[in-house]
Amino acid sequence: MNQQKVRLLISYDGTDFGGWQRQAKGKPTIQGTLEDILSRVFNEPIQVVGSGRTDAGVHAIGQVAHFKTSRDLSRYQLLRALNGLLPTGVVVRQAWRAPSDFHAQISATHKTYHYWLLNSPVPSALRHRYLTWNQRPLDFGFLEACAQQIRGEHDFASFQTSGTESGPTTRHLMEARWTRKSPTLFCFSVTASGFLKQMVRNLVGTMVDLNLAGQPAEEMTTILAAKNRQKALGTAPPEGLHLYRVYYPRDLDNKCRTL
Amino acid sequence: MNQQKVRLLISYDGTDFGGWQRQAKGKPTIQGTLEDILSRVFNEPIQVVGSGRTDAGVHAIGQVAHFKTSRDLSRYQLLRALNGLLPTGVVVRQAWRAPSDFHAQISATHKTYHYWLLNSPVPSALRHRYLTWNQRPLDFGFLEACAQQIRGEHDFASFQTSGTESGPTTRHLMEARWTRKSPTLFCFSVTASGFLKQMVRNLVGTMVDLNLAGQPAEEMTTILAAKNRQKALGTAPPEGLHLYRVYYPRDLDNKCRTL
Repeated sequence: MNQQKVRLLISYDGTDFGGWQRQAKGKPTIQGTLEDILSRVFNEPIQVVGSGRTDAGVHAIGQVAHFKTSRDLSRYQLLRALNGLLPTGVVVRQAWRAPSDFHAQISATHKTYHYWLLNSPVPSALRHRYLTWNQRPLDFGFLEACAQQIRGEHDFASFQTSGTESGPTTRHLMEARWTRKSPTLFCFSVTASGFLKQMVRNLVGTMVDLNLAGQPAEEMTTILAAKNRQKALGTAPPEGLHLYRVYYPRDLDNKCRTL
Repeated sequence: MNQQKVRLLISYDGTDFGGWQRQAKGKPTIQGTLEDILSRVFNEPIQVVGSGRTDAGVHAIGQVAHFKTSRDLSRYQLLRALNGLLPTGVVVRQAWRAPSDFHAQISATHKTYHYWLLNSPVPSALRHRYLTWNQRPLDFGFLEACAQQIRGEHDFASFQTSGTESGPTTRHLMEARWTRKSPTLFCFSVTASGFLKQMVRNLVGTMVDLNLAGQPAEEMTTILAAKNRQKALGTAPPEGLHLYRVYYPRDLDNKCRTL
């Protein structure tokens, strides 16, 4: 039987989900929801492999996943069927026929996350699900000075939430910068080949807490050097975090074809 | 007892509310929620007067309301208490001490509404609560040509949802234009001294339906001239509609003071 591999580009509102990874109990998950709907659409059991997990409450603009099927569906039929059956807030934006050596997790070369922070005296009525509100005044220049300290290759052991499988904790941040989208809306963009557990949320939480505590931005370097989670400060809440994009080698991208 | 008038600037996510106006049954309303929380904060019964109603599911960026109280609270205390007690998705952005002749509804000179339309093959995962998704391709130039037909003073009887109290149906649209915020995101901005029941949603629904039916944009003028609701086409859904701003005479604005 001829099996084909399908690559999906997925967006989701993580608010009402227990994260990406299928689990036996608790809230529905994105992976579980996709597998259930794909299995119905293809009328065969489908397993979905994502580029990686996202925590409960974290959103995705550009999550990537793949699955194998022995049946044929056009891109139009697939997108229409999936988006018709998926719950509001989970959207399959695009689908390609992927080469057999494409693997959503193993082939991924790097990822970009965005973390959105609203720094204003009052919260947001319409965007509260997609950003973190911080009432106390933050210094944008301070946050950017913190981000400068962590760019490049470092051991991020201090920013790894415990309970993670042990392994190398050195990561290379190709991008780590704050952008001011409006006087009160800040966005932290970070790109790396890989991230430790809750690393982005631990980085953002620590930068914000250092600012509020009146510590110098150089404290980020001291915390990195300690290689000890006890030295970092808070973990920023999940609702501000968005998986923005997953990158693959160009030759693999070029081998993906319209379904 | 010295009564003072307070003016509020309010934003709300209308998704989970039964509209602005307090009602005996059904979903909670914005007015009812505000009155309950204000009565708790001031420890006296508070009645809230809004600039006007919004339908169930319609959002507001800049709704305005007033209430009277005999008690004193600073702006800081009031905003903190209200935003701490109000449900997520209802935010009091600003509060002023208003002059005694200020009336949120009667003093309002005009209002601006925005209607957001996503015109793409797939829906939006993160903005689905705040816009209306239209899958079939729309012609932006056609929508703008329709908007041109309705600018200025016209009898909008054809665009008034029935069940309204009878009265004059002529309105002056100072602004009626479509803006293309991105290749797939369109926004209709409309400003007038007053609106008939569901007028903005009936205008948008008719423009979209004319486009999809391949009718000429001049049909808008024909429908206006008919002065008959049966002649207009669909009513666009509430989730795309946002009350953006309410305007008051400058002298009243100038007499509003920091609490």
